[in-house]
Amino acid sequence: MTKTIDLNCDMGESFGVYKLGLDDEVIQLISSVNVACGFHGGDPNIMDHTVAMAKKYGVGVGAHPGFQDLAGFGRRNIDMEREDLMNLIIYQIGALDIFCQKHGVPLTHVKPHGNMNNMADSDEEMATNIVDAVLAVRPDLPIMVKPNSQLHLVAKAKGLPFILELFADRSYNSDFSLVSRRIEGAVITNPNKVAQRMVKMVTEGKLTTFNGEEIEIEGQSICVHGDTPTALQMIKTIRMELEHVGIQIAPFSV
Amino acid sequence: MTKTIDLNCDMGESFGVYKLGLDDEVIQLISSVNVACGFHGGDPNIMDHTVAMAKKYGVGVGAHPGFQDLAGFGRRNIDMEREDLMNLIIYQIGALDIFCQKHGVPLTHVKPHGNMNNMADSDEEMATNIVDAVLAVRPDLPIMVKPNSQLHLVAKAKGLPFILELFADRSYNSDFSLVSRRIEGAVITNPNKVAQRMVKMVTEGKLTTFNGEEIEIEGQSICVHGDTPTALQMIKTIRMELEHVGIQIAPFSV
Amino acid sequence: MTKTIDLNCDMGESFGVYKLGLDDEVIQLISSVNVACGFHGGDPNIMDHTVAMAKKYGVGVGAHPGFQDLAGFGRRNIDMEREDLMNLIIYQIGALDIFCQKHGVPLTHVKPHGNMNNMADSDEEMATNIVDAVLAVRPDLPIMVKPNSQLHLVAKAKGLPFILELFADRSYNSDFSLVSRRIEGAVITNPNKVAQRMVKMVTEGKLTTFNGEEIEIEGQSICVHGDTPTALQMIKTIRMELEHVGIQIAPFSV
Amino acid sequence: MTKTIDLNCDMGESFGVYKLGLDDEVIQLISSVNVACGFHGGDPNIMDHTVAMAKKYGVGVGAHPGFQDLAGFGRRNIDMEREDLMNLIIYQIGALDIFCQKHGVPLTHVKPHGNMNNMADSDEEMATNIVDAVLAVRPDLPIMVKPNSQLHLVAKAKGLPFILELFADRSYNSDFSLVSRRIEGAVITNPNKVAQRMVKMVTEGKLTTFNGEEIEIEGQSICVHGDTPTALQMIKTIRMELEHVGIQIAPFSV
Repeated sequence: MTKTIDLNCDMGESFGVYKLGLDDEVIQLISSVNVACGFHGGDPNIMDHTVAMAKKYGVGVGAHPGFQDLAGFGRRNIDMEREDLMNLIIYQIGALDIFCQKHGVPLTHVKPHGNMNNMADSDEEMATNIVDAVLAVRPDLPIMVKPNSQLHLVAKAKGLPFILELFADRSYNSDFSLVSRRIEGAVITNPNKVAQRMVKMVTEGKLTTFNGEEIEIEGQSICVHGDTPTALQMIKTIRMELEHVGIQIAPFSV
Repeated sequence: MTKTIDLNCDMGESFGVYKLGLDDEVIQLISSVNVACGFHGGDPNIMDHTVAMAKKYGVGVGAHPGFQDLAGFGRRNIDMEREDLMNLIIYQIGALDIFCQKHGVPLTHVKPHGNMNNMADSDEEMATNIVDAVLAVRPDLPIMVKPNSQLHLVAKAKGLPFILELFADRSYNSDFSLVSRRIEGAVITNPNKVAQRMVKMVTEGKLTTFNGEEIEIEGQSICVHGDTPTALQMIKTIRMELEHVGIQIAPFSV
Repeated sequence: MTKTIDLNCDMGESFGVYKLGLDDEVIQLISSVNVACGFHGGDPNIMDHTVAMAKKYGVGVGAHPGFQDLAGFGRRNIDMEREDLMNLIIYQIGALDIFCQKHGVPLTHVKPHGNMNNMADSDEEMATNIVDAVLAVRPDLPIMVKPNSQLHLVAKAKGLPFILELFADRSYNSDFSLVSRRIEGAVITNPNKVAQRMVKMVTEGKLTTFNGEEIEIEGQSICVHGDTPTALQMIKTIRMELEHVGIQIAPFSV
Repeated sequence: MTKTIDLNCDMGESFGVYKLGLDDEVIQLISSVNVACGFHGGDPNIMDHTVAMAKKYGVGVGAHPGFQDLAGFGRRNIDMEREDLMNLIIYQIGALDIFCQKHGVPLTHVKPHGNMNNMADSDEEMATNIVDAVLAVRPDLPIMVKPNSQLHLVAKAKGLPFILELFADRSYNSDFSLVSRRIEGAVITNPNKVAQRMVKMVTEGKLTTFNGEEIEIEGQSICVHGDTPTALQMIKTIRMELEHVGIQIAPFSV
């Protein structure tokens, strides 16, 4: 049986005249997109366009809700009340879903953006509010989570389907937390090295941590970045290496 | 057979700490609400709350998309390109629809807000873009239109279901255009006079124009305002008078 | 010599069609206004109107910058980078100042709004960024601070003029921190009791803490609220009681 | 005596993570910048940065107020009431001016952005509101205007200083209106041809219209674009050709 792995990328983060990312190229190389929903980035036009492209290339479409902070691109911590956060997420899921309906493709998953996601690594209340938001409207919609994060643990506990996501170019600690960017080596920049790590994860179910330890992981999706020519090259290398060993790039199945 | 008529009111136009309208009282007196979707007014919390109330009181829920102009409350003309306007409307319909899904009630209609609606009175291109937006995602969703407006004519021509809406307190010209607010008598302020006009419209299918002419009209919904104590009293009077002659207030059926 | 005290109130927090506060009445009872600058609330029209009123009633005009979060009314913590926060504050000061220029009145002070202010109670870095923002453009402009807050300490250390502000209706701990609203008695609702506390502070320079201790305080401004009829009554009582013992309500002098 | 001409360019239109324009290169080639003020584009950080660069390169700094329409980049007509528009413009002038104060450079002019400017070509009321806004706060601040536009005529009639601005790459009709972009030849793309037109205008005070007629013009500033590598090349060519015939690039003087 052929092994498959999902490659996901944040996309549709342009806004009005402002362009961000090499979406039109990247989407041909991956299998799932996380589409910005107009709050931290994205707008109705780019959402429509991104879903249309996703359909064209047979790529899964996920909602990528973020904080209502275009000025900060959703990359600032905001302390939101439970009700505020839940409704913010629900709203964004609905806004994207209707473009999926328009193009006749299913909404495949949800992945919180930026600091909404980061805060849910360790903040159980935040994780709970995010999971409850999805459960309130789409109890069968998988959520992308970092292994061992509060978001992962809460989704598991509450029965929301989840997809374990690994960052292709980031070093991990033994508890699956990311090595801080302030530490040298936290971000792996050599495309071949990144690719080899991913091949190993898919074929052997193992990841080598920053400290050299080997830990077991059943990652279901690999997160790649598509905002620079270098990033694009990284994706191509990862894809090539994966296919080289017979692994197929395809949307996750839950 | 009992005659019925729909009473509709714009609602859910509060934003954050800012409160607008006597929603919690008005919703008990009417049969359909047009819910702001976060662009000219409204936010995810108030949308959630308004749909919950609509469910509680058995009231129809319509999307009330407006221009992206909170500062102007959607009451300024904005020249939007076809694609921009269509996607803006689709986005807002989706955002509201998911709250309907959350509460298990159907989305019953769409009604453009403020100047998006006013521009479509006479601007055929604008009307076309609005109708096409709805057709692109919900070809069975009725749109509320002013009789004889371009929005009405285009919806009819394109096969989008529509609901003829009359403004309870406004004087009409013979062609169903509204008498300009600058002309004395354009707005009828006497609740009993307003109520009697509506009773006549429902029972006889006739409306007396500003010039005293009687014109035929099959209005399916009466638009009332709920933002002041006076407006609230107006609704109560209209409702009472309609019920007095045996007319039932109920959501329209298409 | 007549004793004087400043009464300050947040004002100009309406936005577009959304009205907030009883500004037109309150401004006649106080001596300084803190004017929202369009980010957490307020808009160019209300800023213009508020400064015009301040001129009419001889009231001091302060800038009241807040987080860029109209949806949360500036009442949510947002983690902002130093440069982002400084420029956000500078921008808002400039935006208000030009309306002061238009009406020929001086900008008298600055007071951070909501959680920008609250975060600076204990966050020294935040306090530093706020103080540095003012120093960068108006090194002589006094900042309103809570006694003993980081904002107070940093302003003092850096030589930015400051005004010690007391909240009329809040209970204090011995270190001038506010008693948490979760504790009964944190907010004093009896207007006469509030007024007597303020009279004592102005005449004796003493404040009775939540635990009954008497602490010394040289408050230069008393913060009152003007958003409800009850709040308005509170201001009237405070003002009457202060004037009754010969204290004059007048803008602070630094 | 050396002839001089001003080259101006819209700048500082980035927003948050979104980058627009080759500002850092273009600013070294021109003599005046029109800085976006946060409504159609720009944010406090980019405003601060742009003014700092303008100081470094000895370039004049103008306010470039636009409609409150980041989604449409100020390029959509919006019907604004007189008071709304005036205060919108005043606010933006103040917001930019304080960054000028911060960096110790004067605010040299104002130039409306996009469709705010375009509407004022022919709409006298709009032009009046714009001119009155500037007069209300900076009656000595020159406004950049298209020759013969309503903005030009109103500024002249009301005594607001103005700068006649020509678009380097656009064909003109005999009445100084721009040839519609829909007509072939409306935009001149050959850098040398553009440069020669500008040299002729500066040295001879004449412009060849689309129809071949020669009209007299005392242009004081030439508008160039800096958003693409091609545009950058255009500026370099214009600058070189102007300097080649002994014309100095320098901020306008009024």
